[in-house]
Amino acid sequence: MDFKKFVRDIPHFPKQGVSFKDITPLLKDPGALKGASDALVAFVGDQKIDKVVGMESRGFFYGPVLAVALKAGFVPVRKVGKLPSKKISHTYDLEYGTDTLEIHADAIEKGDRVLIHDDVLATGGTAKATCKLIEALGGVVVQCNFLLEITALNGASKLVGYEVKSLMRF
Amino acid sequence: MDFKKFVRDIPHFPKQGVSFKDITPLLKDPGALKGASDALVAFVGDQKIDKVVGMESRGFFYGPVLAVALKAGFVPVRKVGKLPSKKISHTYDLEYGTDTLEIHADAIEKGDRVLIHDDVLATGGTAKATCKLIEALGGVVVQCNFLLEITALNGASKLVGYEVKSLMRF
Repeated sequence: MDFKKFVRDIPHFPKQGVSFKDITPLLKDPGALKGASDALVAFVGDQKIDKVVGMESRGFFYGPVLAVALKAGFVPVRKVGKLPSKKISHTYDLEYGTDTLEIHADAIEKGDRVLIHDDVLATGGTAKATCKLIEALGGVVVQCNFLLEITALNGASKLVGYEVKSLMRF
Repeated sequence: MDFKKFVRDIPHFPKQGVSFKDITPLLKDPGALKGASDALVAFVGDQKIDKVVGMESRGFFYGPVLAVALKAGFVPVRKVGKLPSKKISHTYDLEYGTDTLEIHADAIEKGDRVLIHDDVLATGGTAKATCKLIEALGGVVVQCNFLLEITALNGASKLVGYEVKSLMRF
């Protein structure tokens, strides 16, 4: 399936000079929505997954879909202040400034085998921070998979040592 | 399945005096995650659904899962400034002030049969605004379904004329 035809470029979004990859055409097409799910599940192969972790908020689109397909649980990683119970956080550098992600402390059990999913692999900062959160709770990152990867931003270089899969490369 | 045992009360979140219903224990349990999906799909019965619309951001957890199960597409309704392409918006009253939701103008085709899904039915303001957005684009709201309903807030009264289903009532 040619998934790229369901992704559209939005010039100058969210700011001047940035071209945004909009996946909403893929989500709204029943065949592409399901086809991309099947392809992401196929990336995992026969590796056992206990939890799928998705990052706020576009990692929530496919995270639970993959969890259901893999007979796993789903765990959200969220921005500061959104998770209500006891949690741990990880702060990482952006081009300018820092960002912080949080996960519930009871979301991952020691030894849990985890699939990390987000829609886009850009600089890799979010995915790397999520790996750190999972490992801080004793989980094992089995794979990081993405709908699409912006290769010019070289996010995969931040994820050396992890299995990284992307459905589309731009 | 007793889904309520997978929902925990968080006192004084997000603010003093409010008791928050935390669904993350349900999401992280593989059987409860899938069981709730099956139950929400069963609410729809044999009604044809073209699009499932989920509201940012906790409506994204089950929205795409239901869309895949119903062989429909998924459409996100988002807060201001998040959707990148041409869109329409609806502003509605909160207890203090207003809030605005947006949907892509090309997300719904005239006559599309739509299932609206969110995690919680509270005052019903978000769901009502989403109905308005869908109808403004020519869609037909077939059902609004929710993981849980806070009955004391009487959100169902804002949705009179629509089919409303909730998996849990508190």
